[in-house]
Amino acid sequence: MITERELVERLAAMGWKGSRAVLLGPGDDAAVLRGGFTISTDIAVEGVHFRFDWVSAEEAGFRAGAAALSDLAAMGAVPLALLVSMAVPGDGDHSVAHDLQRGVRRSGDRVGVAIIGGDVSRSPGPVVLDVVVVGKAVGFVSRGGAEPDHHLWVSGSLGGAGAAVSAWSVGKSPDPAARIRFAAPPNRIPLGRALAGRGIARSMIDLSDGLIPDAGRIAAMSGARICIQTHRVPADPCAGGDLNLALVGGEDYELMFTANPGMESRILALGEELSVPLIRIGMVEAGTGVVLEDERGRRTDAGDAGFDHFATPWPDGPR
Amino acid sequence: MITERELVERLAAMGWKGSRAVLLGPGDDAAVLRGGFTISTDIAVEGVHFRFDWVSAEEAGFRAGAAALSDLAAMGAVPLALLVSMAVPGDGDHSVAHDLQRGVRRSGDRVGVAIIGGDVSRSPGPVVLDVVVVGKAVGFVSRGGAEPDHHLWVSGSLGGAGAAVSAWSVGKSPDPAARIRFAAPPNRIPLGRALAGRGIARSMIDLSDGLIPDAGRIAAMSGARICIQTHRVPADPCAGGDLNLALVGGEDYELMFTANPGMESRILALGEELSVPLIRIGMVEAGTGVVLEDERGRRTDAGDAGFDHFATPWPDGPR
Repeated sequence: MITERELVERLAAMGWKGSRAVLLGPGDDAAVLRGGFTISTDIAVEGVHFRFDWVSAEEAGFRAGAAALSDLAAMGAVPLALLVSMAVPGDGDHSVAHDLQRGVRRSGDRVGVAIIGGDVSRSPGPVVLDVVVVGKAVGFVSRGGAEPDHHLWVSGSLGGAGAAVSAWSVGKSPDPAARIRFAAPPNRIPLGRALAGRGIARSMIDLSDGLIPDAGRIAAMSGARICIQTHRVPADPCAGGDLNLALVGGEDYELMFTANPGMESRILALGEELSVPLIRIGMVEAGTGVVLEDERGRRTDAGDAGFDHFATPWPDGPR
Repeated sequence: MITERELVERLAAMGWKGSRAVLLGPGDDAAVLRGGFTISTDIAVEGVHFRFDWVSAEEAGFRAGAAALSDLAAMGAVPLALLVSMAVPGDGDHSVAHDLQRGVRRSGDRVGVAIIGGDVSRSPGPVVLDVVVVGKAVGFVSRGGAEPDHHLWVSGSLGGAGAAVSAWSVGKSPDPAARIRFAAPPNRIPLGRALAGRGIARSMIDLSDGLIPDAGRIAAMSGARICIQTHRVPADPCAGGDLNLALVGGEDYELMFTANPGMESRILALGEELSVPLIRIGMVEAGTGVVLEDERGRRTDAGDAGFDHFATPWPDGPR
């Protein structure tokens, strides 16, 4: 059985032949049209991506909007607008729809953009939210630009959202900080714009599925190997520093990027400027796939290391 | 209880304050960004908009794509690209997802655009498809441009799709022509482009909900009254010429537009050029709302005429 992310990639590739109107087609965080218009869509299903005993409808909307905007951050794009489609219960109570809309709007307010359209249907099933983000990228950064000798960097800390899901999935209340990491993904738009606009990042992705699977995407699109130095990975204190959650917990919506080694001082200065921790966690090498390296230099193939997304606390989760 | 379309409109208006990046915001067939990029999204839910005992998954995808593209036609926009988000059963059988994707792709092929992105989630509920259309409108036509003395025009014939739904809803097989009207909405992109690009249409909408409710939208957005001359309405022969289905059946995805009376000969010539019937069915007047006028000149307020969408064969349908 393939994962949903693999299904997205298979479907995206179906019949894609390029188009004069399109600068960057399926397979990246967002597509880019001639003129720089950048567009992406992100679906969230009740019971799969969120539950209403975990978050309120407004939080679910905020989270869906922030997750969708994260794809623009990963392209280095400036957001212009949001659209929201939703399927909601047809019971005549429109409070869920209003709360979802309000939450998505708050995610737009945070980055200065409005909701310009959308659609609503009643549904006999779970609430479904599809958030469309539109932005403009002048010099966009794709997943495919990683080259041997680049350093691998990540923003923020990882595993907090996974810790919240992990707690909920065994009937516990998560640590409040972990809950916030799940309900309110960070805004990395200013960081993505600076990394792209200043020519720092050469490849970039947002961490939605987890460090290892998302590193695998950079590796595959770039035709290179990613080495993650596990002792450098900023495991979130609110996740108890759990390395498994940091590597595969997912839902962090931080940025991972690669850059030339000479960029190190500029990257650290940018982190200070934006008050965002930027941590070097590895490097790009010739080869394929993702390898993990511990502090003694011992290496393991990430696929063999016991860290994979079927082993996470959310085995049938949103991947 | 408000209709879903009313809910869309309420949600769209929530907190909308305008934006420098946006030429046309919520409330029309599509939003238009500065630079002419035109974008719309259209959600379709299994059991609400379609059923798999009515149409195949590929037909459902084609229909969803064609319905979404119809919004670009109504703006007079040139399509550039599609994106597709879907929620599908998580049973490991990906044939539904593939068939839906293939159907949407075929709708794009018909107008020369590709699918450039999207998302997939498993779902424990019905199949949900959200199709995002992106286009470019040079001189777009909104719903708000109708003025007294304009003539009211419609393309094609109406009620066929409603006849198919009507048959299915009582357990009958629809007339094959009516079934096609439901499963394969027409491509009115060339017509919309010509009506906008040649300065013919002054207001325009695509007929998704039905002639009366959609005329009500033109009236409301334009601050004018729409008079529909019922004897002129082109009721589809495959619907047995049923006027109710033509007025409120919905799902026809034909274009309705208003134009200055002096445009009549150019409109008829355009219809010949594109081989699309274009029929004058009424006029715009000072006032508000929608009135129906029969061949003897007797008038009824459309809201009082017994033709409303709660009286259609699909009372809890996609409105």
